[in-house]
Amino acid sequence: MAKKLNIGMIGYGFMGRTHSNAYRRVTNFFDVPYEPVLKTICGLEADEAKAFAGQWGYESSCTDWRQVVDDKNIDVVEICTPNFTHAEIAIAAAKAGKTIICEKPLAMNGEQAKTMVDAVEAAGVANFVSFNYRRVPAVTLVKQLIDEGRFGKIFHYRANFLQDWTISPDVPQGGMATWRLDIKSAGSGVTGDLLAHCIDTALWHNGPIGRVNAMTETFVKERMHAETGKKEAVGIDDACTFFCNFDNGSMGNFEATRYARGHKALYTFEINGEKASARWDLHDLHRLEWFDYGDEGRLRGWRSIHMTDHDGGHPYMDHWWVPGLQIGYEHTFVHQIADVLTGLGGGQHAQPDFRAALATQRVCDAVLASAAKGQWAEVVKD
Amino acid sequence: MAKKLNIGMIGYGFMGRTHSNAYRRVTNFFDVPYEPVLKTICGLEADEAKAFAGQWGYESSCTDWRQVVDDKNIDVVEICTPNFTHAEIAIAAAKAGKTIICEKPLAMNGEQAKTMVDAVEAAGVANFVSFNYRRVPAVTLVKQLIDEGRFGKIFHYRANFLQDWTISPDVPQGGMATWRLDIKSAGSGVTGDLLAHCIDTALWHNGPIGRVNAMTETFVKERMHAETGKKEAVGIDDACTFFCNFDNGSMGNFEATRYARGHKALYTFEINGEKASARWDLHDLHRLEWFDYGDEGRLRGWRSIHMTDHDGGHPYMDHWWVPGLQIGYEHTFVHQIADVLTGLGGGQHAQPDFRAALATQRVCDAVLASAAKGQWAEVVKD
Amino acid sequence: MAKKLNIGMIGYGFMGRTHSNAYRRVTNFFDVPYEPVLKTICGLEADEAKAFAGQWGYESSCTDWRQVVDDKNIDVVEICTPNFTHAEIAIAAAKAGKTIICEKPLAMNGEQAKTMVDAVEAAGVANFVSFNYRRVPAVTLVKQLIDEGRFGKIFHYRANFLQDWTISPDVPQGGMATWRLDIKSAGSGVTGDLLAHCIDTALWHNGPIGRVNAMTETFVKERMHAETGKKEAVGIDDACTFFCNFDNGSMGNFEATRYARGHKALYTFEINGEKASARWDLHDLHRLEWFDYGDEGRLRGWRSIHMTDHDGGHPYMDHWWVPGLQIGYEHTFVHQIADVLTGLGGGQHAQPDFRAALATQRVCDAVLASAAKGQWAEVVKD
Amino acid sequence: MAKKLNIGMIGYGFMGRTHSNAYRRVTNFFDVPYEPVLKTICGLEADEAKAFAGQWGYESSCTDWRQVVDDKNIDVVEICTPNFTHAEIAIAAAKAGKTIICEKPLAMNGEQAKTMVDAVEAAGVANFVSFNYRRVPAVTLVKQLIDEGRFGKIFHYRANFLQDWTISPDVPQGGMATWRLDIKSAGSGVTGDLLAHCIDTALWHNGPIGRVNAMTETFVKERMHAETGKKEAVGIDDACTFFCNFDNGSMGNFEATRYARGHKALYTFEINGEKASARWDLHDLHRLEWFDYGDEGRLRGWRSIHMTDHDGGHPYMDHWWVPGLQIGYEHTFVHQIADVLTGLGGGQHAQPDFRAALATQRVCDAVLASAAKGQWAEVVKD
Repeated sequence: MAKKLNIGMIGYGFMGRTHSNAYRRVTNFFDVPYEPVLKTICGLEADEAKAFAGQWGYESSCTDWRQVVDDKNIDVVEICTPNFTHAEIAIAAAKAGKTIICEKPLAMNGEQAKTMVDAVEAAGVANFVSFNYRRVPAVTLVKQLIDEGRFGKIFHYRANFLQDWTISPDVPQGGMATWRLDIKSAGSGVTGDLLAHCIDTALWHNGPIGRVNAMTETFVKERMHAETGKKEAVGIDDACTFFCNFDNGSMGNFEATRYARGHKALYTFEINGEKASARWDLHDLHRLEWFDYGDEGRLRGWRSIHMTDHDGGHPYMDHWWVPGLQIGYEHTFVHQIADVLTGLGGGQHAQPDFRAALATQRVCDAVLASAAKGQWAEVVKD
Repeated sequence: MAKKLNIGMIGYGFMGRTHSNAYRRVTNFFDVPYEPVLKTICGLEADEAKAFAGQWGYESSCTDWRQVVDDKNIDVVEICTPNFTHAEIAIAAAKAGKTIICEKPLAMNGEQAKTMVDAVEAAGVANFVSFNYRRVPAVTLVKQLIDEGRFGKIFHYRANFLQDWTISPDVPQGGMATWRLDIKSAGSGVTGDLLAHCIDTALWHNGPIGRVNAMTETFVKERMHAETGKKEAVGIDDACTFFCNFDNGSMGNFEATRYARGHKALYTFEINGEKASARWDLHDLHRLEWFDYGDEGRLRGWRSIHMTDHDGGHPYMDHWWVPGLQIGYEHTFVHQIADVLTGLGGGQHAQPDFRAALATQRVCDAVLASAAKGQWAEVVKD
Repeated sequence: MAKKLNIGMIGYGFMGRTHSNAYRRVTNFFDVPYEPVLKTICGLEADEAKAFAGQWGYESSCTDWRQVVDDKNIDVVEICTPNFTHAEIAIAAAKAGKTIICEKPLAMNGEQAKTMVDAVEAAGVANFVSFNYRRVPAVTLVKQLIDEGRFGKIFHYRANFLQDWTISPDVPQGGMATWRLDIKSAGSGVTGDLLAHCIDTALWHNGPIGRVNAMTETFVKERMHAETGKKEAVGIDDACTFFCNFDNGSMGNFEATRYARGHKALYTFEINGEKASARWDLHDLHRLEWFDYGDEGRLRGWRSIHMTDHDGGHPYMDHWWVPGLQIGYEHTFVHQIADVLTGLGGGQHAQPDFRAALATQRVCDAVLASAAKGQWAEVVKD
Repeated sequence: MAKKLNIGMIGYGFMGRTHSNAYRRVTNFFDVPYEPVLKTICGLEADEAKAFAGQWGYESSCTDWRQVVDDKNIDVVEICTPNFTHAEIAIAAAKAGKTIICEKPLAMNGEQAKTMVDAVEAAGVANFVSFNYRRVPAVTLVKQLIDEGRFGKIFHYRANFLQDWTISPDVPQGGMATWRLDIKSAGSGVTGDLLAHCIDTALWHNGPIGRVNAMTETFVKERMHAETGKKEAVGIDDACTFFCNFDNGSMGNFEATRYARGHKALYTFEINGEKASARWDLHDLHRLEWFDYGDEGRLRGWRSIHMTDHDGGHPYMDHWWVPGLQIGYEHTFVHQIADVLTGLGGGQHAQPDFRAALATQRVCDAVLASAAKGQWAEVVKD
């Protein structure tokens, strides 16, 4: 019988839901060494926290995160709160000896992220950052193919994350629903929210980035603040694009925006190598596009691989349904918690940990610095 | 607080998993009048039933379905067993006053299905058949659009269900994993397994079918039987195609096969109306293709609608994540149990019930009779 | 220097244009043993024939097709007139010893087609029928792959031809622009116009068809006749669907309609074999979809082959531009005239000839007979 | 009767073929005020020029371009030679009072392009640069939609041009077939060859660019020179990416490479506006993707418009075939010569002329300067 692992979840927003769902489902589908117990949900509003506890089966709820961190019965502290709170909670949790799972981006900036890395490493606690897209089966398969040398030398890595939900100037900033538009809560705009995902995947796939050159734009200059009710200057980047040099000699090209009409969450990447190319997008996450130059000339073409064939060895897929039946977005969180629990049970800890997330944060910092100065910026390597 | 509803599940195969998962998730995402309690799982092998109970949280397990039917504490009997067992269990459950949820196809043939309809109607128990694809959001939306008259007069209804898993003559028939290839367990081949889905959706979308003209084929004539270990003649249809007349004057064209290399579960349909057309496929179930003749001439084109926009009113989607983030196959079972529970709580019972499933069975019967005789067959209307 | 070959074209409608264009272009792109000379264009209206001659460079024009057939200077008689005129012209041309190129379908029915075959074979003249889609590079490649055994045993052949241009009851029948809707001019509706294409390709790809079972429908029962100005009963099939048995054991499924809203000329086919599958459609004719079961399991997927890679050996493509740059519809006519001219220059005559087109006509006859009688019909083999 | 217009073509390579083909076809499909007469083809090798004349119907051939420029009978000088020769020929032709049609890019750099503009404007001769992709019907339609305000405010303009033909280090530079890899012949690599197309379209669609920030890469540092037979340093840019600010406030993102395995000529662009978005690619040039935020919420989706509907008003398409039947790459040259001839016949001259092409050249210059210096560069406005 699997040992119990007591979870304290801080934050009951969108990410609180995806993480709770992952805990509720993981043991139905994966053979993991721990059985998660949803102990406490913590959030700002007592009523809402209580309702959330009822809906998701938490044993209790509270409104002060310190109560979670201080709770001797809690094994894992989950940080699903706005970015500006991550560091304080994580450092306290590290000191309390908790295993920590933190939503991305890890911190408000690299400097702060570094203090978090130092804290968890000093405390020797297991730690993980929820860059969930690594565990889309297609994205995982790309990593395997790269590691096997199937691409040969890589020339290009291209990634976009396109949304359209902030085009209206009537969307407010700040508050519960739109803290991502408030520089004080989010630290940045699309860079930390969207590009961080692209960068995490890219570093994992294609190795370190040496330097970047970026441009940002804020299309809507003022928005009403949900807390003050007043128009305030918008501090975040609405859109950001950058190119870069990877250490392996390949060129990178990245772009994120919330002003791309017609795209809701279109995270895409494409990798061009000497021997093969691959591309993927989040709107059809169960497919991988693959071009293999080794194919017979007249029959070369981009393959649309439906990632549901567990006989074929598609990562994670043998845990789900039968071939042809696709999974969705939320499954990436189930995969990652399965990997985290397996890591906690012995062997290697799941990645990315805080240190890996720090590397992403450093790229984000360089991107924002480059855009601010209008020149190339070197990426800090820790 | 929602009332408890005690579930007795019979069958722990593929469908036992999808239904169990639906019960486990429904209250996390839908506000339903009942809280399902997974009381008992029943299956052939005691060890496996027990393991399944552990994995999915059933309070107990057993190997005799009569125990479930006779259990006073059970409110709902779930029938997820091979087709040849449905009638006996359902009729007993009806007599015991249980709410019944039965996997599709309802029965081995129309005659048998009729006895089941009679039983549930005589007993006055709520009943439902799990044609889950009605509750893919895109499929539901098509129904709404038809009901609103958005297609105008309908000329064509076309549906296919293409698989490729039985091409090898080494695939056995019979037994736990391949009972669908055994005529004694399944009643038919692709007609009851795959076309039944297409027909259920078609009747729902496009109304009754008057007559059909069909051809079947059995490509592999003999297969080893998993229970006897001997080669036995294959009694099922490996492939079936038919055309038909709908009562509304439109032409129907249907095909199913397990010999379409490259397709795993490619259920597709297309509807051509005077004013609009729509098409959908299960391999990208989160999309609906839509053509509207009312669009401006130079800008007319097939729209690929990403069915994740809850602001836009995509059915069921406001219960899940944020725009752009797709759901998968299993969610259709969550939707249907949500609708069933809502129906049980008062108001209209969810469809399709046994009577609706009987209509599908009658079409299947006509298809098989037509193929056997090589001539048109009228569909029995009950 | 290539020898001159004098062309007499009968018919200046849509097909007169495509054939004239092919003659004008072939020597720019293909090294052929003859240089076509556009000698005479013949059509109903003297003014229009003259204007057409001016636009396309014909040396003369006339209104009586016998003048073309009797002209000693004409080497090739091109028949691009409505179906009901093909037989008379072709038989006269055969007697006059002309090479004959006839638009499809060859005749009004199989019986008539047989007289045409007899005529050209008795006269010993070269003859060809313009089923131009055989010479879409992707369609030609499929034939090569079949002949190489790349599909293994074939289970299914599926073809559709979907249009939407006659949905309005205000479209007239008869006359210059809409003779295809008039049973007296066309012989049949979608069967001869659209299915004939599908059948020609299918017989070429997949061999003879033994028997068929068909349904037809005429959605609009009366249309104004362009010549009489009166409402007359519509005699053609607006839509036709049939299934069939190929002699190689595979199942066929065909459908054509002019009532499929959103499709202009969507000719599609799909072939499912033991080892591979292929599909193609006319709306993106420069692509071939290919699935190869021999691919590594986790990387199996449908390949979208952009048929522009002459290094890879895509048929005909080394005559055109550089990789990535697509050709269009009209090029199929250039390909076929290049092949016809090459055949005339020695070696094998291009296919399909009248005899091959007779086989297609026999299937069309069987389809119409089956639909009329509501039962299976055997295909006549000559 | 149309007046004759005598054409002198300089260059018989790839572009010599596309332009010759356009002249041969234009009067078959367009009612233009001039009838082009293919007077002289001029190229380096006398034998090849003569053969080309035979194949395309030129009355004569020569090897010295001055002979064409000096020929009193020539009305139009066509410059289809490598980039480094454009200026000298064009300036001489201008002085000789010829109408000039020049292949793109106009010149080796902006400075040189300026001298060409000065020459043609001083001479008052009609002039045109062959940025043929403006006349893909889908690309033309986008321009119309922008001019009608259908996009609202534009936020993003994104364009890529991806190829893969120079990945092998064995591809030589220089000479007849690979002069595009030789800095002395081409002036630049992908910037002048590929990005110039993207920039021309972008300036046309979205207005002037203010400043750019670019990165270039040369993956293969040395290649054998086809003329010297020796390995020489590669001077061109193998890949180039840049972002920029358009004067209308939108962000631009451009990339071109010849190292994107799997892409032959994948020119794509996407435009994101407040009210609508559009995207297009050259591999399926007969389609336009269109997203209209004005559509009903639940039915919003990207439309794939098959650009073959002349009733709908698709630009140029009423000159070709019937709906559903696609055109290809070469037709863009027919469209442009039709527009050029119409312009010569009176009214407005077709665009882009030399002055418009100079603006593109200035952006290319800024891109290369930015990449060389590693900083933002302002675009010179003439």
